[in-house]
Amino acid sequence: MKTTALNTSRKCILRLSQYRDALLRLKAEGFVKIFSDILGEAVNVTPAQVRKDFSIFGISGNKRGGYDIGSLLARLDDILGKHEQQSAILVGAGNLGVALMHHKAFEQRGIRIMAAFDKDPARHGGQNGIPVLPMGDLPAFVERHSVKAGILCVPADAAQEVLDAMIAAGIKGVLSFAPIQLKTPHEFILNTINVDIELENIMYFVSAAEKHGSVV
Amino acid sequence: MKTTALNTSRKCILRLSQYRDALLRLKAEGFVKIFSDILGEAVNVTPAQVRKDFSIFGISGNKRGGYDIGSLLARLDDILGKHEQQSAILVGAGNLGVALMHHKAFEQRGIRIMAAFDKDPARHGGQNGIPVLPMGDLPAFVERHSVKAGILCVPADAAQEVLDAMIAAGIKGVLSFAPIQLKTPHEFILNTINVDIELENIMYFVSAAEKHGSVV
Repeated sequence: MKTTALNTSRKCILRLSQYRDALLRLKAEGFVKIFSDILGEAVNVTPAQVRKDFSIFGISGNKRGGYDIGSLLARLDDILGKHEQQSAILVGAGNLGVALMHHKAFEQRGIRIMAAFDKDPARHGGQNGIPVLPMGDLPAFVERHSVKAGILCVPADAAQEVLDAMIAAGIKGVLSFAPIQLKTPHEFILNTINVDIELENIMYFVSAAEKHGSVV
Repeated sequence: MKTTALNTSRKCILRLSQYRDALLRLKAEGFVKIFSDILGEAVNVTPAQVRKDFSIFGISGNKRGGYDIGSLLARLDDILGKHEQQSAILVGAGNLGVALMHHKAFEQRGIRIMAAFDKDPARHGGQNGIPVLPMGDLPAFVERHSVKAGILCVPADAAQEVLDAMIAAGIKGVLSFAPIQLKTPHEFILNTINVDIELENIMYFVSAAEKHGSVV
């Protein structure tokens, strides 16, 4: 879907978030310094991979003492934006969109849905303290609040048009629930959750397991 | 999470569903017979992999004429359970659960949510024609209707207990939205959709891209 280079760096960011999780655990266990081999083992990558990922962001340890966990965590938090309020907008205030607006875990992770947008005036107003606004308000809102991330919960046939509007407004990454392959610019970040296909796969597995037993 | 053998056969089922999608396309284009090399190319696997997957289920072609698309599709539909009504139960009729009960695409794929279950009496009744029943009714319902698949939409701290009850009732595969690693028996099929982590990753990517530009 993207270039190899872009996929590689997305994987790098995913690893940084895994290093961060592992370092938080190790810190809780009393570790102060860490070597790339131990960190690599915790995340299931080679020590060379750890050092390479860190060097991309100018993080260096030393052969004798390794990396200092405290400053490593501070640096990773900085790269991953954990120091800032992380805000997103949501488009499509139907059943799924409203469910996500009531989803408590986002707030627990420091992510705030600033506003939702919908083309249907009947849905305008608010949900769980989050305003639901007309689609036309989206560009000004995104610019005023410097929001860079979005959640897309519109039907498949509207998804590309809505995504294009979000991109034009300055959104740089989207989590999409629309069951369709969407076109994005080169550097744009799109994750898709396809609930239908996930459930259909469960059905396939269950059906095949029923009929063919231990083969599947 | 599972044994390699089980993962291999799950991948096999996923490939069967991909072969099916490709065969439907090829049939629509007028193809009547298909060779393993063309089908493999359409799904991005080797011809040997295609033949191996089919031979597991006793499907054989011949070197001169290849596979007959019509009977191949019928056989795949049979393995994947496409001939039967595919039914599921849902546990946890909170915001997300209710949103899924109103999700039209399940029906379009021939999947029917037969009933939902919740421990909270205030949620009992019905949603979109689907009954919402007490948790205590689950075992008898699953047995009476021979339901094998479930959707799990309860909070993380209740998820393992609820999943165990579903397994005890005879459910063989679950799509879970609970943001937690769940324990299952060896042959059980569990797919997890972690909305929080998917959105958090978008935040990481956007933040890193903002700060480091084209590196990410």
